[in-house]
Amino acid sequence: MTHLTDIQIAQANTIQHITKIAQKLSVDDDELEMYGKYKAKLPLSLIDDEKVAHNNLVLVTALTPTPAGEGKTTVSIGLTEGLNKIGKQATVVLREPSLGPVFGMKGGAAGGGYSQVIPMEDINLHFIGDFNAVEKANNLLSALIDNNIQSKTNNLNIDPRTILWKRVIDMNDRALRDITIGLGGTSNGVPRQDGFNITPASEVMAILCMASDLENLKKRLGDIFIGFTFDNKPVFARDLKAENAMAILLKEAIKPNLVQTLEGNPAIIHGGPFANIAQGTNTIIATKMGLSLSNYVVTEAGFGADLGAEKFLNIKSTFAKLNPKCVVLVATIRALRHHGGAKKEAYNTPDLEKVIEGFKNLEKHIENIRKFHIEPVVAINSFTSDTNEEVNFVIDKCASLGVEAVLAEGWAKGGKGTINLAKAVVNIVKNKASQFKPLYDWKSPIKDKIEIIAKEIYGAVAVEYSKLAQLNLRRIDRLGFNDFAICMAKTQKSFSDNQTLIGRPEGFTVTVREIEIAAGAQFVIPILGKMMRMPGLPTIPASENMTIDNDGVISGLS
Amino acid sequence: MTHLTDIQIAQANTIQHITKIAQKLSVDDDELEMYGKYKAKLPLSLIDDEKVAHNNLVLVTALTPTPAGEGKTTVSIGLTEGLNKIGKQATVVLREPSLGPVFGMKGGAAGGGYSQVIPMEDINLHFIGDFNAVEKANNLLSALIDNNIQSKTNNLNIDPRTILWKRVIDMNDRALRDITIGLGGTSNGVPRQDGFNITPASEVMAILCMASDLENLKKRLGDIFIGFTFDNKPVFARDLKAENAMAILLKEAIKPNLVQTLEGNPAIIHGGPFANIAQGTNTIIATKMGLSLSNYVVTEAGFGADLGAEKFLNIKSTFAKLNPKCVVLVATIRALRHHGGAKKEAYNTPDLEKVIEGFKNLEKHIENIRKFHIEPVVAINSFTSDTNEEVNFVIDKCASLGVEAVLAEGWAKGGKGTINLAKAVVNIVKNKASQFKPLYDWKSPIKDKIEIIAKEIYGAVAVEYSKLAQLNLRRIDRLGFNDFAICMAKTQKSFSDNQTLIGRPEGFTVTVREIEIAAGAQFVIPILGKMMRMPGLPTIPASENMTIDNDGVISGLS
Repeated sequence: MTHLTDIQIAQANTIQHITKIAQKLSVDDDELEMYGKYKAKLPLSLIDDEKVAHNNLVLVTALTPTPAGEGKTTVSIGLTEGLNKIGKQATVVLREPSLGPVFGMKGGAAGGGYSQVIPMEDINLHFIGDFNAVEKANNLLSALIDNNIQSKTNNLNIDPRTILWKRVIDMNDRALRDITIGLGGTSNGVPRQDGFNITPASEVMAILCMASDLENLKKRLGDIFIGFTFDNKPVFARDLKAENAMAILLKEAIKPNLVQTLEGNPAIIHGGPFANIAQGTNTIIATKMGLSLSNYVVTEAGFGADLGAEKFLNIKSTFAKLNPKCVVLVATIRALRHHGGAKKEAYNTPDLEKVIEGFKNLEKHIENIRKFHIEPVVAINSFTSDTNEEVNFVIDKCASLGVEAVLAEGWAKGGKGTINLAKAVVNIVKNKASQFKPLYDWKSPIKDKIEIIAKEIYGAVAVEYSKLAQLNLRRIDRLGFNDFAICMAKTQKSFSDNQTLIGRPEGFTVTVREIEIAAGAQFVIPILGKMMRMPGLPTIPASENMTIDNDGVISGLS
Repeated sequence: MTHLTDIQIAQANTIQHITKIAQKLSVDDDELEMYGKYKAKLPLSLIDDEKVAHNNLVLVTALTPTPAGEGKTTVSIGLTEGLNKIGKQATVVLREPSLGPVFGMKGGAAGGGYSQVIPMEDINLHFIGDFNAVEKANNLLSALIDNNIQSKTNNLNIDPRTILWKRVIDMNDRALRDITIGLGGTSNGVPRQDGFNITPASEVMAILCMASDLENLKKRLGDIFIGFTFDNKPVFARDLKAENAMAILLKEAIKPNLVQTLEGNPAIIHGGPFANIAQGTNTIIATKMGLSLSNYVVTEAGFGADLGAEKFLNIKSTFAKLNPKCVVLVATIRALRHHGGAKKEAYNTPDLEKVIEGFKNLEKHIENIRKFHIEPVVAINSFTSDTNEEVNFVIDKCASLGVEAVLAEGWAKGGKGTINLAKAVVNIVKNKASQFKPLYDWKSPIKDKIEIIAKEIYGAVAVEYSKLAQLNLRRIDRLGFNDFAICMAKTQKSFSDNQTLIGRPEGFTVTVREIEIAAGAQFVIPILGKMMRMPGLPTIPASENMTIDNDGVISGLS
């Protein structure tokens, strides 16, 4: 056990030149676009569809998480170290962290302990500028919209009250949630209500993550639905001739970023869409890049499996024709206690009864994964407060369901702590490899698709629609968007849309309050509760405790 | 002559790997931090104060410009090509372009014709992310301010009505000039009036350009003056413990960027402060970097010499102890016709009488440069509409003042077109090298310093102060900022504060309307007219005509 912070562990590590990491993927120096000595972009020409189909994709997801999260990123990185330790050529493919939360409560997202990706400071800060590019493309469209409203000629007759497109900034800044713009007289725009979301919530980010290449990116950007004209005609980004300029801003951001794990294995980090209102997983291009260069790709999707894995499988894998061979379900004894009824103060107090009761949550997730014709492995992300009897209960109970559960000690030990997990994953891939099947057909009616997810994955008995949602359904029909995928927006704290229903709730109904449209990303977003798109800073922001010395050495970043 | 656009010329050129350019500066591959194959950051450890003092700094400035500008950047790049052609080791050191105007009217700022820096697409777009870093550091401070106002504990008692600090975005977006934030109820901040400036107008950019190293940057960031508490005490960024986190965001942005000219000579591009309300020149660090690695450094300062050169000399050179050896005054026949009274429609119509009359403007700039004990060379930036008699008049008239005037044909011919200019500059450096002397002592009273600039440089007979400016002076005194430099904010269209007074106006009075404080940058900003800090887009934005194909090849960018 260590008393070092994440950044201290990361800084103490000897980092290799990125060309050495690229060599492990058989990528020549010449193909690599270096960004400093330890980061590089990979050109899209390296994607090889045959290899994508042939190599092994492993998805890491989790049971219904506690607010602190159960360590999917840490397990994904640790598993990759373990796979390499047992002689497999494995790459971890992750999302990029958002800058805003780094200065707030949550901190960065580059793993933890001895399972991290490095250089963690750069990854957690501006990285290679992808988030900035997304932000600029989003905000260029905003500027073009308001400029068109202001303009006397070249005017599309947009009704400012119908504009759905918001500005974004990668900052936790609650004062920008609800604003009035265009004040100050005739030369300063037309007054209207607006607001800023955090950059990962931009549809441009969702689009970047769904795009197959620059041409497809451009098409999707042009398809963004903005609002209506005064005579009720839909307005798209292409009506403002915005898609080329937006794609120009994204020309480097579309290329996946190569970095390394603490043990010098390849890590591809690319894209960062919100898990609550978007698909919450790295780009299709990055996943395909990993599979083109590496025999095993370990990747993750945000929140619990009811959200992250469901979207990864029904949206991303279906669209991109990916075929995940194994799903790793991350569980923690702490979260099982929670689902068994333990209060927050008692999360770290051993309590077998609560774990037994809480297992019902994990069991439902296991059942769900199998509905996609995929075999799961359970990774028990190890904490010092776990007892042997709690851990053994989970292992035995999983075994009774025909599932291998393995203690994962990547946080404390790196790859040495995940060898057993790696072996369990390889066993599934070799002996029980899945034949992935999505749960619904994109061509089905919107309401049918929503019902399948709500009943099959959440365990709801029925779906209700608010008046607004019913109006939204008619709008979707009128706009011809019925064959879009469903990107559910629901609390991550429960299978249901009521965050207090822990464990495995039954007999509940979910209510669709409204349905948003992400026409460029090609999904509709049923909103099942209040969704936060712009976090705030805490009373004492993390920024107060950060320091940097004259040599550029940072402390206080987590 | 060519009919190719700037981007076509740039794309047709064979670009060298950036390590080859670094070799010309004796910088090893190992010291270079590459960003792709054609861009790199230079570590601050390469700065060598002895070489800074010994090598030759050449400042390119201009007569009072027409709205289109007179081509300082193009002449600076061309002169650098010319110096290298005659066997001098020369580097051009420039400002970074702002992204916003690229999609508006102005376009990028990477030179033109056969005098460009490349890769022009990257330089004109996100480049290496410096502007984004400045934007994020600026907006983190904004978020911390509003978070502090919202916070019940940890509250500094800031009076929201006194906040001078604005948010920034690198976009031409007039609808953000005047906004109301913090709407939507108690959990969404405290309502107040705010606005966005374009990123180059951020004091963080001014600070980055004045900083000597990370430690000094941090100190300056902490010194930013935000506003007052309800009991009228000043509030600084350091009171919010913001300076370390802001410096962390700027840790890469502080390093100068190396690219190349079309002829493969080194170009260092770094920092981009507004010329109207800030110092309008590249970073002190970049200028020193150039002088540490190169025998000649050619650099420029924004707008005419009354603004750009005055600030370059009195603020930047004085603070950083730089000693410019020669000033190149860019003139165009077009601008001389303008100052002689030609209407816009007749700028390209030969008219010797107008040129003779307009020469008075150039003559005043020549006199001004000599007040700093520096010898100027006049570069006549060549246009096809120039006649021999007009050009010869300028050459002869300059000669009568003891100044060499040379036709500069860098736009059409690259370095071949600037050999004579290069020889004239070398002649000054070798035979008439200046002993630079600033025009005022920073320690003098604010009003004295303003008066020196207004009388000596502008030719005003008196300076008047509005009631607000007088209040501002008392505030400056109370805050102890009397020994700051003066960063004048005045129209670039006239020596006076009245933009209609062309040529060499006399007998006029200038009025200081208000005086802003940039405490981190260590200057006060007397405002002599309405200053635009957030441009808008034109009716047909440039973005509408841009394209990008699936290989990433861009057209329509200028």
